[in-house]
Amino acid sequence: MGLVQRRDIGIALLGLGNVGAGVVKLLEENAKAIGERLGARIVVRAIAVRAPGKKKRLVDVDPALLTTDVARTIARDDVDIVCELIGGEDEARTAVLGAIAAGKHVVTANKALLAAHGEEVFAAAEQRGVDVYYEAAVCGGVPIIRVLREGLASDRVEWFYGIVNGTSNFIVTEMTAHGRAFADVLVEAQKLGYAEADPFLDVSGGDAAHKLAILAMLCFGTAVDAAAIPRDGIDRLDPIDFRYAEKFGFVIKPVVVGREHAGAVELRVHPAMVPAHWMLADVAGARNALYVHSYALGASMYYGAGAGMMPTAMAVVSDVIEIARNIQAGEGGARPQRRHRALARKPMLAPDEVRSRYYLRFTVEDRPGVLGRLTTVLGEHQVSIQQVVQDGARGEGPVSVVILTHEAREGDVRAAIAQIGAMSGPVALIRVLEP
Amino acid sequence: MGLVQRRDIGIALLGLGNVGAGVVKLLEENAKAIGERLGARIVVRAIAVRAPGKKKRLVDVDPALLTTDVARTIARDDVDIVCELIGGEDEARTAVLGAIAAGKHVVTANKALLAAHGEEVFAAAEQRGVDVYYEAAVCGGVPIIRVLREGLASDRVEWFYGIVNGTSNFIVTEMTAHGRAFADVLVEAQKLGYAEADPFLDVSGGDAAHKLAILAMLCFGTAVDAAAIPRDGIDRLDPIDFRYAEKFGFVIKPVVVGREHAGAVELRVHPAMVPAHWMLADVAGARNALYVHSYALGASMYYGAGAGMMPTAMAVVSDVIEIARNIQAGEGGARPQRRHRALARKPMLAPDEVRSRYYLRFTVEDRPGVLGRLTTVLGEHQVSIQQVVQDGARGEGPVSVVILTHEAREGDVRAAIAQIGAMSGPVALIRVLEP
Repeated sequence: MGLVQRRDIGIALLGLGNVGAGVVKLLEENAKAIGERLGARIVVRAIAVRAPGKKKRLVDVDPALLTTDVARTIARDDVDIVCELIGGEDEARTAVLGAIAAGKHVVTANKALLAAHGEEVFAAAEQRGVDVYYEAAVCGGVPIIRVLREGLASDRVEWFYGIVNGTSNFIVTEMTAHGRAFADVLVEAQKLGYAEADPFLDVSGGDAAHKLAILAMLCFGTAVDAAAIPRDGIDRLDPIDFRYAEKFGFVIKPVVVGREHAGAVELRVHPAMVPAHWMLADVAGARNALYVHSYALGASMYYGAGAGMMPTAMAVVSDVIEIARNIQAGEGGARPQRRHRALARKPMLAPDEVRSRYYLRFTVEDRPGVLGRLTTVLGEHQVSIQQVVQDGARGEGPVSVVILTHEAREGDVRAAIAQIGAMSGPVALIRVLEP
Repeated sequence: MGLVQRRDIGIALLGLGNVGAGVVKLLEENAKAIGERLGARIVVRAIAVRAPGKKKRLVDVDPALLTTDVARTIARDDVDIVCELIGGEDEARTAVLGAIAAGKHVVTANKALLAAHGEEVFAAAEQRGVDVYYEAAVCGGVPIIRVLREGLASDRVEWFYGIVNGTSNFIVTEMTAHGRAFADVLVEAQKLGYAEADPFLDVSGGDAAHKLAILAMLCFGTAVDAAAIPRDGIDRLDPIDFRYAEKFGFVIKPVVVGREHAGAVELRVHPAMVPAHWMLADVAGARNALYVHSYALGASMYYGAGAGMMPTAMAVVSDVIEIARNIQAGEGGARPQRRHRALARKPMLAPDEVRSRYYLRFTVEDRPGVLGRLTTVLGEHQVSIQQVVQDGARGEGPVSVVILTHEAREGDVRAAIAQIGAMSGPVALIRVLEP
């Protein structure tokens, strides 16, 4: 087979915001290299936008490409691949299912869509014989989907830890570095563009749960209701816990955890204490990382920009290139469609059954016997203690008692906290994550 | 296109050592999952070995599969993919070119082969319309080849730093942790199986240069003579330099560096000082990592087991799965052969033109004016100094003068050292690597 010039691959963009503009820019700037690799050009045929007359755009495009008509854009005969860059759930779902029905391959960066409607979308694609690629949906430009699906195709993922929400990681990194309160840093993050005007989805762990649902699908072959994933946000982190973290040799990080058990999957989203000397502790600012433990490879880690115009666009265009290659391969033959593993619906491990070490901060009266009673109650619930620190000047109101436990069952820890009840003010509970 | 059962994919193994045994083991253990993903089985048709009668093997195989006849193994009609796991250059080259000529796809873990004969092998494959995959050749099980070739397909790598030789990293990690001498640690590493009986290729940087040549081909599209890559081994590292590294906030790591300049590629293999708080400093023991800086994505890093039976086998079998998918896609149509970028022969940057910060340790007589003369000579050669440390008790023989320079041109640093000449004992020069 010689290196013949092949026909152009036509793509349509739905949306010309940050990521869409990045895609246009990258396709232009790397046109020559992409052409050499593919033996064909990738040509943008149409771009569906809300307001074609808008003057200020992040990138110059031929006005003739712009349209408001999503349905007609999708239906064009000269479009092979539809890139859904609208975001949100409903409109994106309609567009993606429409593109699939029209026999188009789809590239999407939309984790909310895939978390909520992934099963439906993949089933439709399977049925219609087209591909859906979504590298940009998790960890931005870091090619983690490809790594899990192809690089580890012969392996079996046992568990993974991830830092997958850049906004949360940026805020927590600032809180760590400067001892500042959550609310202060959030305002700054919004000014710098690292947090949305409505930051709820990011700081509550909702966005991370979407990504975790996608990772669980990919690693454990299970469909997950992202809304049912247990989550703690970073909004309740107190600067005092960052100081104790440092004392114990930890750094606080906003993480997702996925682990396959016999008959259940453990999925959770929360801030965690991670050892300061561990690589995951070095994932700072808006960066993302996934630390994977698989049967054959053991530990591996993947790190990089989890968001941003060009990193995300890079992932989208790399997906386009791969589909283009598949199209070329299939000309005149079968389409090398990627098989989507039939998804099971494995039950989620009950939060009470999670096993971990715990950081617990109690606020108690500084009276004789209080520490003894705390530790006794914990002991009665099979929670054994590794380290205790009591701070605060004697006789000057409540003091902090910080306890680091050995590995314990979360249900036992919660039962102990319930029994301690009014003896302590609100208890801070942070799980410890270790390699 | 429904999920029909497809025909079995036949593979032949050349070699049944560590990696070959891992491949057999992994194919057996993950047969069900692989079958589900592919809709077909991967079946080992034959295994070419030197001594079929050998009693002790790392894995049980049907004796009927064993043969000494490489040529007949390759030629079998029921073999689609040949896995070359012999190692070495000559025999492996003959086998790989033979397999290609017979129209078989090839998977190899052999970096020495690809570094020396990559151009020839890829040209033959291109010509014959078959694929050569080599994920296991660099960073063991970490899917770095796939990341660079597909994950970053739309991007342009500007530079990368890698820790790609597990043996060197293991030795240097031990030297760091325990302040021990190179020769001591080497003996232990040999006992533990982390170093070969003949460790020269590993500790001299030769193996790392092979991998660097492959990375340069992939990232910069250039064919490189691995033997011409400038290299320093880890065998001349002195425990004293590890102590100074710690003082300056560095950790010593055995690295490869690749960087594209206008009209030249900078390639080098040597131990380097890296900031202790940086992720690359945390890559310990026999682990590997590649830290990549690309135009669109910015910094990203990939980390994991760089060697070992199961990690390497995992990479080989993942390659087999991908080729199997391609074969399925091509049934009745064109083969979706991956195009190998036409390789240029870009000149290598002269070592003198490398720019870096430098750690320099001089051994001088403790006389007035010596430090002044050292710094004056460096200054005359445009090497400016960031930090100086002078140790050793006055009047008790020679003392160490350690200098950390600002960024300088290596040719200037070497000229200064030459001029300093007999004023100092042997000068330790270690380059500094920063994000």
